[in-house]
Amino acid sequence: MNDLPMFVEIHEEGPRDGLQIEKTYIPTDRKLQFIEALAETGLREVQITSFVRPDLVPQMADAEEVASRFTPKPGVRYTALYLNEKGLLRVLATQKFHIKGRLSLTASEAFCKRNINKTIQENIAMLPNWIQIFKDNNVAIEGGGIMAAFGCNFEGDIPLERVMGLVEVFEDLSKAYDFPLQEVSLADTMGWANPEQLKRVVGAARARWPEVHFTLHLHDTRGTGLANVYAGLQMGIDAFDACVGGLGGCPFAGHAGASGNVCSEDIVFMCQEMGIDTGIDLDQLIDCAKLAEGLVGHPLPGKVMKGGNLRKYREAAALARNA
Amino acid sequence: MNDLPMFVEIHEEGPRDGLQIEKTYIPTDRKLQFIEALAETGLREVQITSFVRPDLVPQMADAEEVASRFTPKPGVRYTALYLNEKGLLRVLATQKFHIKGRLSLTASEAFCKRNINKTIQENIAMLPNWIQIFKDNNVAIEGGGIMAAFGCNFEGDIPLERVMGLVEVFEDLSKAYDFPLQEVSLADTMGWANPEQLKRVVGAARARWPEVHFTLHLHDTRGTGLANVYAGLQMGIDAFDACVGGLGGCPFAGHAGASGNVCSEDIVFMCQEMGIDTGIDLDQLIDCAKLAEGLVGHPLPGKVMKGGNLRKYREAAALARNA
Repeated sequence: MNDLPMFVEIHEEGPRDGLQIEKTYIPTDRKLQFIEALAETGLREVQITSFVRPDLVPQMADAEEVASRFTPKPGVRYTALYLNEKGLLRVLATQKFHIKGRLSLTASEAFCKRNINKTIQENIAMLPNWIQIFKDNNVAIEGGGIMAAFGCNFEGDIPLERVMGLVEVFEDLSKAYDFPLQEVSLADTMGWANPEQLKRVVGAARARWPEVHFTLHLHDTRGTGLANVYAGLQMGIDAFDACVGGLGGCPFAGHAGASGNVCSEDIVFMCQEMGIDTGIDLDQLIDCAKLAEGLVGHPLPGKVMKGGNLRKYREAAALARNA
Repeated sequence: MNDLPMFVEIHEEGPRDGLQIEKTYIPTDRKLQFIEALAETGLREVQITSFVRPDLVPQMADAEEVASRFTPKPGVRYTALYLNEKGLLRVLATQKFHIKGRLSLTASEAFCKRNINKTIQENIAMLPNWIQIFKDNNVAIEGGGIMAAFGCNFEGDIPLERVMGLVEVFEDLSKAYDFPLQEVSLADTMGWANPEQLKRVVGAARARWPEVHFTLHLHDTRGTGLANVYAGLQMGIDAFDACVGGLGGCPFAGHAGASGNVCSEDIVFMCQEMGIDTGIDLDQLIDCAKLAEGLVGHPLPGKVMKGGNLRKYREAAALARNA
């Protein structure tokens, strides 16, 4: 009937990418409650905090406390964000994380400049140093990530060749420095992707690097989030970053009130309905989305958390039929 | 590259399906402003009111006044909802509408009973009388609509054969009563559809009745709205009912706060980005969504109205490059 994957893995980023832009500081206790509830849903990977500068991201000032206090659930990979060596050393010091040695590039010259004050070429030139840092710290390198791979508020459309060129950079480095290029994440950082474009980019990348596991990080800024997920599934993508409730939003100008990350439980719902296993209990994940709504104190854009899992309607209808 | 349609027509239902469940009565003047703004966007069809019982749907109590006061824009088809002969006669009396002679059936036994207090068979038995009413009033019959074609809160899943059987009913009637079966609308009344299911249903229907124009009426109750639109496009569907801002919601129990109809401007955005023409000015349609938000006095779930048309980012980026 189709060639959709049979199993899809959701990498939950609610506690990190979701909460980091929230203005109201959320007490550590409540973050821990959220993280532990997420781990009970069947999620296999949860990004729970960010080891960055507390003066720049006050919401993540309690990274060490979160790390020391959460109780890891066996079978769940807990990850944390870091942006420089100092951050990585902080992550390592906690001894509680699955550390992804991932090289990061940006497909938009303008966004790269804005984000890290480097050109794309300068960013590429930094990667051997990162490889050294990972080797020095015994962190296995598993691949790379490409931000703004589908378009950029500051640069406009991103040519397919640019994205392919950056994957090639990862490939060349993996040969030169002898690490396997296992995984590449393509990020629609500013919500520019449309389903047909996503198919072209993913299709070209998978055709050229069939042995690389490509994953997607999508934002639902303009409503195409789940359509893009569906397009990704059609191209064989089986791992998506997402946030419960659609937490996140985008801190860029002009995006006030805009939707954030693609919504975890809406993806799980769509997969469930199409017969794709995620290993996740949808009702429990919906409960986490409601918990998140309570944490941030404002409505979240997630939809199945309001519309409801269809299973309960099916069960009630079956009961009514048999009554 | 693909077999998506080159042109997609949006049937805007914001003023009718969108506003009918809003509790706060919207003054006729403001409704007229909304209707006239919609007609300026390039939309070819707008459903502007409903000739139903004012005691049951107070928001539509001003149907005659709306009809007499709006200034039709040439090239736009204005439609109105009616549910019985009395309603149809009221529509006809205004002499301002494109009247769709459409036969209506429901694919859910339980919902049919709840909605019109008839079984599906009793509903089918009513259709010859409807055909006579249309003939008596010189209304051309253009086809039929099937509600709850993808699932039902009260009955659960709807078998494909049920939907096919109802299209067959329309076909048989078209032969028996000598009218062409031009168009059949499949409605996901309660937001149950998923993209793969939608492909199966639409694919089976189009394969069996290739000469019939199938259209879709979708709700975004559980976040799959645009993914379902994309699935429909992939199956060659080129006409969708929708509401600006995602107006609508669903008046059924258990759906409080749930999203309504699939959002017009989000569809137009997705089509625009994929190179599919809609004839609609996205910025003007976004302005209508913002106007609608003002009318109803609460936030609407539409996304591109918050995230913004990408064209302005492209233009600004091009200017910056050339500076």
